[in-house]
Amino acid sequence: MAGDLIAALVALLGERHVIVDPAELAALAQDGRGATGRPLCAVRPGDTGQVARLVTLCRAHGAAVVPRGAGTGLSGGGCADESGRQIVLLTDRLNAAPKIDRLNRTAEVGAGVRLSTLNAAAMAHGLFLPIDLGADPAIGGMIATNTGGARLLRHGDMRRHVLAVEAVCGDGTVVQLGRGLWKDNSALDLKQLFIGAGGATGIVTGATVALDVAPQHQVTAMLALADPRATPALLADAERRFGTLLTAFEGMSPRAMQAAFDHVPGLRPPFPGLPDAYAVMVELSGNALCDSDMLEEALALWCEPRMTGPDAQVLDAVVDGGGRHWAIRHAIPEGIRARGQVIACDIAVRRGAIMEDRALLIDQVARRWPGLQIHDFGHIGDGGLHFNMVWPTAAGPMPAGLADAVRTFVFDMVVNRLGGSFSAEHGVGPRNIRHYERLTPAAVQQLSARVTSQFLPAPAAAAIPLSQTRNQG
Amino acid sequence: MAGDLIAALVALLGERHVIVDPAELAALAQDGRGATGRPLCAVRPGDTGQVARLVTLCRAHGAAVVPRGAGTGLSGGGCADESGRQIVLLTDRLNAAPKIDRLNRTAEVGAGVRLSTLNAAAMAHGLFLPIDLGADPAIGGMIATNTGGARLLRHGDMRRHVLAVEAVCGDGTVVQLGRGLWKDNSALDLKQLFIGAGGATGIVTGATVALDVAPQHQVTAMLALADPRATPALLADAERRFGTLLTAFEGMSPRAMQAAFDHVPGLRPPFPGLPDAYAVMVELSGNALCDSDMLEEALALWCEPRMTGPDAQVLDAVVDGGGRHWAIRHAIPEGIRARGQVIACDIAVRRGAIMEDRALLIDQVARRWPGLQIHDFGHIGDGGLHFNMVWPTAAGPMPAGLADAVRTFVFDMVVNRLGGSFSAEHGVGPRNIRHYERLTPAAVQQLSARVTSQFLPAPAAAAIPLSQTRNQG
Repeated sequence: MAGDLIAALVALLGERHVIVDPAELAALAQDGRGATGRPLCAVRPGDTGQVARLVTLCRAHGAAVVPRGAGTGLSGGGCADESGRQIVLLTDRLNAAPKIDRLNRTAEVGAGVRLSTLNAAAMAHGLFLPIDLGADPAIGGMIATNTGGARLLRHGDMRRHVLAVEAVCGDGTVVQLGRGLWKDNSALDLKQLFIGAGGATGIVTGATVALDVAPQHQVTAMLALADPRATPALLADAERRFGTLLTAFEGMSPRAMQAAFDHVPGLRPPFPGLPDAYAVMVELSGNALCDSDMLEEALALWCEPRMTGPDAQVLDAVVDGGGRHWAIRHAIPEGIRARGQVIACDIAVRRGAIMEDRALLIDQVARRWPGLQIHDFGHIGDGGLHFNMVWPTAAGPMPAGLADAVRTFVFDMVVNRLGGSFSAEHGVGPRNIRHYERLTPAAVQQLSARVTSQFLPAPAAAAIPLSQTRNQG
Repeated sequence: MAGDLIAALVALLGERHVIVDPAELAALAQDGRGATGRPLCAVRPGDTGQVARLVTLCRAHGAAVVPRGAGTGLSGGGCADESGRQIVLLTDRLNAAPKIDRLNRTAEVGAGVRLSTLNAAAMAHGLFLPIDLGADPAIGGMIATNTGGARLLRHGDMRRHVLAVEAVCGDGTVVQLGRGLWKDNSALDLKQLFIGAGGATGIVTGATVALDVAPQHQVTAMLALADPRATPALLADAERRFGTLLTAFEGMSPRAMQAAFDHVPGLRPPFPGLPDAYAVMVELSGNALCDSDMLEEALALWCEPRMTGPDAQVLDAVVDGGGRHWAIRHAIPEGIRARGQVIACDIAVRRGAIMEDRALLIDQVARRWPGLQIHDFGHIGDGGLHFNMVWPTAAGPMPAGLADAVRTFVFDMVVNRLGGSFSAEHGVGPRNIRHYERLTPAAVQQLSARVTSQFLPAPAAAAIPLSQTRNQG
């Protein structure tokens, strides 16, 4: 059976676009968080028609298709399961050069084009897709996971930027939803069902995205706080002062900062005398006047003890053009991974409560699992928190079941007690599907299943559903 | 039968919340564009539970329910049809005072709360919902129609601001989709199916919306252009210069301006010596520095003949704090209505092509219907154009079928030749449902119908669908 399917795929795509080599397949079982699963093979369709034909073909053979972009996902969405029967569909050949419409401020782009490639093309016109994250994902994966990132506060998520989607539905039909228009309310907006859907409705093959004007000026400040609970008030004051010039407001625990400094030797701690301070990074950027004087003026006020209460003042602050501070911020995930085994929780809560919620989680986790080191950091400006814990390398192998128990405990607290989300920006995939099933109301799950089933063949013909609950990584 | 239903509705809601008085019902047959339809009665549920019960009740009696907010819609979505059997559901009692969460920058709000009421509550915290339009709609209607408005260029549409929706589905079940979180990708985002859906999936009863920081500074300029074709290049230059401080970029034809001046005596023409100039209004607003000097500097350059070519220069420009220029802009629709019978086309095209597309439409319409006066204006910054035509009062009654023929011609050109939208921001309703059926690909219509049917009772039980293709006005 498997041999028949592979032969049929070779007939459809040509031998060089069907990967069966075990070493190559092993690489495709990795994503940004590590290894998972074992595909039957991987295929590299060259256009939308081939995607449609191979979805139909795989279905006829009872094989599920797992779309995969750059493989940078963190929920396992771009990886096959352990069955050895799933087909990984690589989008890297759906990579026609981005067509930039400068006056419309849009780009038509294939699903397999990387963010960096799109932005290189857009920057030639002074434009960019302003989704900022550490990785370099493919556009299709960004749509399927609704990528957020560090500048969501100002620029929003991927959903905000998608003006049109071309996709192959689970039943093999090709749909073109939307055009490159900024305003269009002439039909139910079905393309929304492909954004953040993790492939449950189909495979994104192309898109038209809205671009922003690239800022000409940028300045950042790193602040050392005596008490992290000062951050929500600081954020509100920064928003009031700077309005749309405020483009990032990030928080970093002292332990997360230290992990970055220990691991990346070139980085210099901004506050060598304050190793226990919680750090906040503020970014302003814009095109009209947006300079360090504006930021210095605010910092002078914020550093006055009265501003945020006696226990919550800003102890120190330094200004930069952006590069050095972002280098620290983006080095944190790698620094944490170097400490040991990471138990990652990508959570979100209400912005005003984020520091109280964080303190509660730290307290509860430390009581139950004193061997874990908590290295949290996050997008305080949008309520997102990477509540990451480390089982230190020095402590030997992590006990079996620990990661699952800890994540279950944290997610329960976040969703049921704090009214938050167990997946702020990484989406739902094999690594957290169990929590979706536990924590999402049954009525919503049933409604979702009914809606997504409309994109699949009629029940009689359905053998195996198209990788539902999967992200294009 | 009708008497039975009314008696049951009275039993459910109380006599004073079931409106059967012909004069009151006649008022409810009006929306922002005029009169349409004739309801059996109107009901005023006081909470979400009553909405659910009356949806179930009406369905059992085979009566469709038409949700209606402030009655400011322009596509007839908040009005009953001519059958005399539909029930208008007024949301005005779903009006619990907005709960503002200052640090989260969100508001929980009932569907029946007006935009002005929400904004009065938000402004007490220096916040606002930045959707700008001439009318004062209810939040539920804004969600159902995905309201855009004059500042979409900067602030986006209603979809961008909706973080959570409470709704009664067409089958009477109550769903809560989303929470007041800025980042949440823990499930398929089903609330999107209630935004811009015109009631096809259910009735929005409440929402949590994201607020923006209210700007402290605002300045506008009105520009007189020798040739409107200069606008896309001016827009690109304004975006490059001002970045996120640019909050509106509106275009007004000389005839649209003149209609406003003729009708509202207090308005003063900004360019008395240039009655034939196409006008563009530019608004900057923000919190950090954003003053008239910045704008004056740009205007000095734009007024140089070389800037935009010999035939396309800025002939004159005046700066204002905003009030006088917006008064002119917002007086235009009323001015046009005073000229005669309006044939309105709410279209959108690609921004860079908007002035060429406009010229083509003007030429084609003038050739075919020389008796029509074209008074167009629009949101050039987002490609939206109110391509409105007037059959002048002096010409006597408008020939039967003319409005329909003209709209059909314009929409065909816009969609099929120019790749645009026949409904940029007013949504689909009885006034343009025929064009949805003509111009939307059949496959998309079928997929939409399948998706929305998941929110209705199972086919066996379905008598009359809940006002599909209707807007909450």
